[in-house]
Amino acid sequence: MTPDRLASQIRFLMEIDKLKSIVRQTWLLDQSRRENDAEHSWHLAVMAVLLGEYAVEQGLNLSRVIRMALVHDLVEIDAGDTYCYDEAGHIDKPDREQRAADRIFALLPDDQGRELRELWDEFEARRTPEARFAAAMDRLQPLLHNVHTDCRTWRDHGTTAAQVVGRCRLIADGSPTLWDYAEGLIRDAVERGCLPAGGE
Amino acid sequence: MTPDRLASQIRFLMEIDKLKSIVRQTWLLDQSRRENDAEHSWHLAVMAVLLGEYAVEQGLNLSRVIRMALVHDLVEIDAGDTYCYDEAGHIDKPDREQRAADRIFALLPDDQGRELRELWDEFEARRTPEARFAAAMDRLQPLLHNVHTDCRTWRDHGTTAAQVVGRCRLIADGSPTLWDYAEGLIRDAVERGCLPAGGE
Repeated sequence: MTPDRLASQIRFLMEIDKLKSIVRQTWLLDQSRRENDAEHSWHLAVMAVLLGEYAVEQGLNLSRVIRMALVHDLVEIDAGDTYCYDEAGHIDKPDREQRAADRIFALLPDDQGRELRELWDEFEARRTPEARFAAAMDRLQPLLHNVHTDCRTWRDHGTTAAQVVGRCRLIADGSPTLWDYAEGLIRDAVERGCLPAGGE
Repeated sequence: MTPDRLASQIRFLMEIDKLKSIVRQTWLLDQSRRENDAEHSWHLAVMAVLLGEYAVEQGLNLSRVIRMALVHDLVEIDAGDTYCYDEAGHIDKPDREQRAADRIFALLPDDQGRELRELWDEFEARRTPEARFAAAMDRLQPLLHNVHTDCRTWRDHGTTAAQVVGRCRLIADGSPTLWDYAEGLIRDAVERGCLPAGGE
């Protein structure tokens, strides 16, 4: 251990405290406030622990999924949270997030900065089973929150079921079982009248 | 997969959303508010990822430490957060937390309820290297927040350096390196005048 190495690690750990102030669109289940990225990342990690058995690929490295969940939103410290159906906000999102990753992961010692950057790049690319399952958790969690809060975020934004299906369909790439389940939730929400079906 | 099994898992995952509303004494670094248990658990898990190299035991199962960090405070959904220097609050804390564990982990399918309960029991007992390292993270994180917020929580409660040392010394059981570092931070805080030395 060099004092410099530990100092860099601590500096990074203090920097990422800011994730606790990046507010998402998702409401807590008691609807007292919106959740933030740090809480969301925690929730995803616990979901991965418990729902890993539904991953389409057997022998998934679940510990890697959990680590991905823990760091997948760190770039939003600089880039902010973009509501998933905000098309304008998505135009420059990749650029903003790449710049954020360059800055934030560079705070760490080189080897660890590379390790976390690789986790984030893998999550974004969705080319490994681990990344596809982590992405499935990242789509499923806000969907669960929506259906348990009378579709609050969807109603706030006039989101339609067709949009939700379009965005969440990739849950199937990580877990067909969980996508079946999610589709049932979306259908129920339409039937309850809190999510308009929308056009294709 | 039985529908019942998935339903139990989802019910548990929705129940633990409440952890986001259990407020701790620790202030966010920007001092805008106190942090909650879900954010704290996320922060601990990331600390474990990055600081695992300082664990006293080589070959530590870091994935187990991370899972412990994710679930270690779930019992506070029922039992609440007890400030670590609140002696009265600690008298019935073990009872309250055992009852909470009985209820919360029982929401899960039996095998997973047992798995998470074992993680929590292991964390509490601090008899394995993984539990000792997880406990070290759990002591180090609020200490870091205190020294980076001008000792805010310590000042609020009139906490002394002797108390902090007494409580945080167990960091050494998980990592002598990190305890050396933490001791330096405590000394600095005393020298800066924001933490009174206190008696033994």
